[in-house]
Amino acid sequence: MAHSEPSASKAVDGGLSEEFAVPTHAEDVRKLMAEFAEHHGSAGRRVVLITSGGTKVPLESRTVRFLDNFSSGRRGASSAEYFLDSGYAVIFLHRHRSLYPYTRLYAGVNLLDSLQSESVKEDAGQILVDQNALPNIAKVLKRYQAVKAAGLLLPVEFNTLSEYLHLLKAAAQALSSIAMFYLAAAVSDFYIPAYEMPEHKIQSSNGPLQISMKMVPKMLSPLVKDWAPKAFVISFKLETDPSILLERARRALETYNHQAVVANVLDTRRGYVVVVTKDTQQELVLTDEEVQEEVEIEDRIVSNLTAAHSQFMSQV
Amino acid sequence: MAHSEPSASKAVDGGLSEEFAVPTHAEDVRKLMAEFAEHHGSAGRRVVLITSGGTKVPLESRTVRFLDNFSSGRRGASSAEYFLDSGYAVIFLHRHRSLYPYTRLYAGVNLLDSLQSESVKEDAGQILVDQNALPNIAKVLKRYQAVKAAGLLLPVEFNTLSEYLHLLKAAAQALSSIAMFYLAAAVSDFYIPAYEMPEHKIQSSNGPLQISMKMVPKMLSPLVKDWAPKAFVISFKLETDPSILLERARRALETYNHQAVVANVLDTRRGYVVVVTKDTQQELVLTDEEVQEEVEIEDRIVSNLTAAHSQFMSQV
Repeated sequence: MAHSEPSASKAVDGGLSEEFAVPTHAEDVRKLMAEFAEHHGSAGRRVVLITSGGTKVPLESRTVRFLDNFSSGRRGASSAEYFLDSGYAVIFLHRHRSLYPYTRLYAGVNLLDSLQSESVKEDAGQILVDQNALPNIAKVLKRYQAVKAAGLLLPVEFNTLSEYLHLLKAAAQALSSIAMFYLAAAVSDFYIPAYEMPEHKIQSSNGPLQISMKMVPKMLSPLVKDWAPKAFVISFKLETDPSILLERARRALETYNHQAVVANVLDTRRGYVVVVTKDTQQELVLTDEEVQEEVEIEDRIVSNLTAAHSQFMSQV
Repeated sequence: MAHSEPSASKAVDGGLSEEFAVPTHAEDVRKLMAEFAEHHGSAGRRVVLITSGGTKVPLESRTVRFLDNFSSGRRGASSAEYFLDSGYAVIFLHRHRSLYPYTRLYAGVNLLDSLQSESVKEDAGQILVDQNALPNIAKVLKRYQAVKAAGLLLPVEFNTLSEYLHLLKAAAQALSSIAMFYLAAAVSDFYIPAYEMPEHKIQSSNGPLQISMKMVPKMLSPLVKDWAPKAFVISFKLETDPSILLERARRALETYNHQAVVANVLDTRRGYVVVVTKDTQQELVLTDEEVQEEVEIEDRIVSNLTAAHSQFMSQV
């Protein structure tokens, strides 16, 4: 049942491939991402890798139970749209079934409630969309189809923490040059190593549950130092306690030496973030009026960062 | 930060309302369910309460991290359709965003990929459904709309374990007479009491994580004994290890004294279940041919149980 503990020697990736099995499709995904970046790069288009959604951390190898992180994937999905509007090509590395660019606008709608009944004829005939149930659908569909036809969006899915870590590494290797990394996914800080995991469903008849979890290796460190040293790297910091937010953001910048941290608090994350860099600290705030007009804070975040990215590239 | 531990005196519900805060809408939901059952009961229609999907167990009170159970809600959602086909009225108590009757058939399809591009005219005009992207959509939509128009399906959502437990109690009180309870939800066996939960996001800088979880009170016991003693109650038992499955199912029946356990193994759950009652043990199996013809095992489970329900009611 239990595997033997791996040896103490750790590779440059913090023991990633020893502790987490490499997904079989990692190499194919790396090639796909490299081709995508090459294609758009040679057309003079900038490329951003967006990570989005939470990670699943199994508690059993035949998994019934898992630890998860709060994340609908809203921030990543909406940011992807603004990056596309700004002329970027987007690799969207997202949790399976988390929110998706454009489609996210209708995530709360039951598909069958958005189709018109009167148009269902006996076994044949056409079915029409009820455009009241799907606001702005004509406009959104047109934009979605244009993005798709131009091949500007490359979606890649992950589900578990292990898949996320390996696919992020593959992305870093594929985009080692001057891409932007926009790491909005909510990645677990803790996991249970394969050699400590029970194979079968934990039995409740055994009494209360004690779980002991190890810390996940921080990928930001090899990403910035070894895999993509020329890239423009943005991490996100979500806290529930506002009083520790900025100090944590500063500490992350000092530890990993990347370009910026987007810091936000759980309760106010849709209307207020702080973009923290080594020398600056910019608050982005939506006014009540802007919230009413459905302005999205991701529009501001992306504007801020694409400008900073231009400046960064001009200094290289 | 921490609340004081509740007193040792436990109510008939195993301390439910002491350990888990009652959701503000529980009483409204109870009334809604009682009216629904009364309305359909007086029309001679049988009522089934289906629970479906996994439960979310927060690790922090301002929740960033949570424990979850594997469950797409597929079994509950498809079973609802077969119960409706069998003439039942259905209360569908399901996890927010888990699979939903009828809509579940298109869960893997991106909405925007199922709409036809050629039909999008400049800012106006109609948008058509691509019926190749949504197989059988005309038939499914017709059935969905008929069920909705007849008011045969009452959806109720939960998200956390706490909401699930209180809404199940409300359902049991609303349907105390001769309803069927089809408890297909994957309910956590473990939780962290509010008074032991940290308020803020657990900091990874504090080192590895030790989690200590209490056992969730078994609601089946008060449900069968006190809340709905005349009801026909079906529980589900999912294991990953086939060798312990039937013994666990039998033990559940002996402990709670309800009518049947649907026992299944994670890897084979879509083609094989055993319906275990006090005196019988029936295997329901799909042949390879049936699987190819997209027969669903839930069709068999529901046939088996509606027949048993008829027999049960004739003996009352």
